[in-house]
Amino acid sequence: MPGPIALLTDFGEADPYVGMMKGVLLSRFAQAQVVDLTHQVPPQDVRLGAFYLMTSAPYFPEGTLFVCVVDPGVGSQRRILWARSRRRQFLAPDNGLLSWVEREDPFEEVREVTNRLLFLEDVSATFHGRDVFAPVAAELARGAVPAVLGPRVNGLAKRLPFPEPKRARGCLRGTVLAVDRFGNAVTNLPIEGLPKGSRFRCKGVGLGPLRTHYAQIGPGEPAAIAGSSGFVELCVRGGSFSRKHGVEGGDAVEVSG
Amino acid sequence: MPGPIALLTDFGEADPYVGMMKGVLLSRFAQAQVVDLTHQVPPQDVRLGAFYLMTSAPYFPEGTLFVCVVDPGVGSQRRILWARSRRRQFLAPDNGLLSWVEREDPFEEVREVTNRLLFLEDVSATFHGRDVFAPVAAELARGAVPAVLGPRVNGLAKRLPFPEPKRARGCLRGTVLAVDRFGNAVTNLPIEGLPKGSRFRCKGVGLGPLRTHYAQIGPGEPAAIAGSSGFVELCVRGGSFSRKHGVEGGDAVEVSG
Amino acid sequence: MPGPIALLTDFGEADPYVGMMKGVLLSRFAQAQVVDLTHQVPPQDVRLGAFYLMTSAPYFPEGTLFVCVVDPGVGSQRRILWARSRRRQFLAPDNGLLSWVEREDPFEEVREVTNRLLFLEDVSATFHGRDVFAPVAAELARGAVPAVLGPRVNGLAKRLPFPEPKRARGCLRGTVLAVDRFGNAVTNLPIEGLPKGSRFRCKGVGLGPLRTHYAQIGPGEPAAIAGSSGFVELCVRGGSFSRKHGVEGGDAVEVSG
Repeated sequence: MPGPIALLTDFGEADPYVGMMKGVLLSRFAQAQVVDLTHQVPPQDVRLGAFYLMTSAPYFPEGTLFVCVVDPGVGSQRRILWARSRRRQFLAPDNGLLSWVEREDPFEEVREVTNRLLFLEDVSATFHGRDVFAPVAAELARGAVPAVLGPRVNGLAKRLPFPEPKRARGCLRGTVLAVDRFGNAVTNLPIEGLPKGSRFRCKGVGLGPLRTHYAQIGPGEPAAIAGSSGFVELCVRGGSFSRKHGVEGGDAVEVSG
Repeated sequence: MPGPIALLTDFGEADPYVGMMKGVLLSRFAQAQVVDLTHQVPPQDVRLGAFYLMTSAPYFPEGTLFVCVVDPGVGSQRRILWARSRRRQFLAPDNGLLSWVEREDPFEEVREVTNRLLFLEDVSATFHGRDVFAPVAAELARGAVPAVLGPRVNGLAKRLPFPEPKRARGCLRGTVLAVDRFGNAVTNLPIEGLPKGSRFRCKGVGLGPLRTHYAQIGPGEPAAIAGSSGFVELCVRGGSFSRKHGVEGGDAVEVSG
Repeated sequence: MPGPIALLTDFGEADPYVGMMKGVLLSRFAQAQVVDLTHQVPPQDVRLGAFYLMTSAPYFPEGTLFVCVVDPGVGSQRRILWARSRRRQFLAPDNGLLSWVEREDPFEEVREVTNRLLFLEDVSATFHGRDVFAPVAAELARGAVPAVLGPRVNGLAKRLPFPEPKRARGCLRGTVLAVDRFGNAVTNLPIEGLPKGSRFRCKGVGLGPLRTHYAQIGPGEPAAIAGSSGFVELCVRGGSFSRKHGVEGGDAVEVSG
């Protein structure tokens, strides 16, 4: 199952941390094909990392190894896991980061990564991305059999509940999960299964019915649109919904009608 | 005409959008050589994207395929074009993004991209970078003949006029096109053909004659210098011209003498 | 000595400058394996660039060519150097950028890069990253013998003194060298050789003894921890030490006990 190594971290691009990880990857496996998924998960925001991973993974090649390092518990007793679904494989701390990617592509094998022979010789207590994840990923990409990583385990120990929309008094209530560069607010409201004629409201702003194309929205008009990851997004055509209406992650979205 | 795939978008690096595009590229063509030109074109700023493309393209290898996604009209009736010059090829919305790169390396063949068989199976209305541009780019990089993309067309439908400097009362008047990370203000004033003895002024600040080297400028001194893309740039040695003098894109620059 | 080309610059990712460098690299050597170390060294901050290079280089493969462009003197008489240690090679302006990487892996050969035949045909006075460093790097990666670059020289002309901690009245005094994305303050205090029982203080905040794991720190507690690059780092568990205590590069750190 050879394929690229996709990196998802909260290290940012300013510090040399991601560069060091790539250095280790190439030191151990010169032919590694490394792809950045994103390094700008907000520091230690495991939930947003889990959401990005869930929405992005389906677009990567079969066999891709996702190396996911959003790891507030680095150096503690939290486990490091390798997980394999039918199509992809993952390395991540057992802190919930893999909770949601599993929803559509269940894991068939999960192992705890314990084999210190695969790690860098000196393992720091604060940077396992470089000292543990990168060298282990390189070994896997080179063709190591997963059995060398460590013992099979029963799956994730820590699972985050997916933030499902809630129903209260005939009104569906969702949440803003992420705000993107364009100021669009990505919600947890799945497009599939929304009742016909649903209307949306956020921070007191009425957003009308769901649109399927930006072209259906007037310039400057706030609206709800069918987002590219299967969830309702709130937007302003040609502007930033987030900035214009002061919306951020965690804000409530009401669906009625 | 095989070569790398260079990406220019306004998606930023924080959201997973560029990562998804790369995932699709590698899913369709595992050997794709992908290079980031920039992903930080300001959201929907087609003009600045066109300027970056014009100044950068000459430095890329023959055969490079530029995938350019600054696309406020995504999902509308705007066309998607593939264009080929003698040396390079481009995929972009027909919104003016390709207007200026054509000035020095004219297009010899332009096609509208219409063949849905090349797209992802489910095409969203809001993220054609992932669902249309990436898979089509992968097919081209794999060696697809351009004829499969769609019908030949007559060239760009939408062209942005290049912001030429204007002459008024013996004085040449230019504009700041971009401010870079160093606070340098890149203008639309071509170095070639400037009258000898030209002197520059911006926001009331006299900048003296054109310098060719930073070493000719005193520390802290504001000056006009021959920029690396063929245009006059306004700078402060060892500082930020933009911040010091409150200059931004669109501000006027006067040339006299 | 073939290997990847690692880029360290202060160009940022917003402007197309790094993209142009990569374009030139691939134009001259289509098989170049290019890795970003970081492009967000603060503009013209040679010292921080030197620090990042020193801490990152050991994690890269043997034979890596580091192309380092933090170059306030671009276009002046400052020399451009190629340097080779037993394990790695470097291209950089002779402005101190290579001062510290040499400490653990001394240079065995240093040359001034003077052979204009290797540069782009038109060399600008303001962007040697694109016009000089990139094409020279490509030639080296393709296998050019270093002798073609230019004459051997005696080593760096400009060396920055490493900011060693100072001892005054029985108290060791260090400095904050860098603040990372997590708000951790990386100091110049080497972990090795710290007296047992050392206690740390910065901006009036007592930080207690050195911790080796985040798990030893209470939530919200400020502390000093053994950082991943061999230096003491100041942190707040689950927060930003820098923001919470207003700490930035250059601030003093006292060690007592």
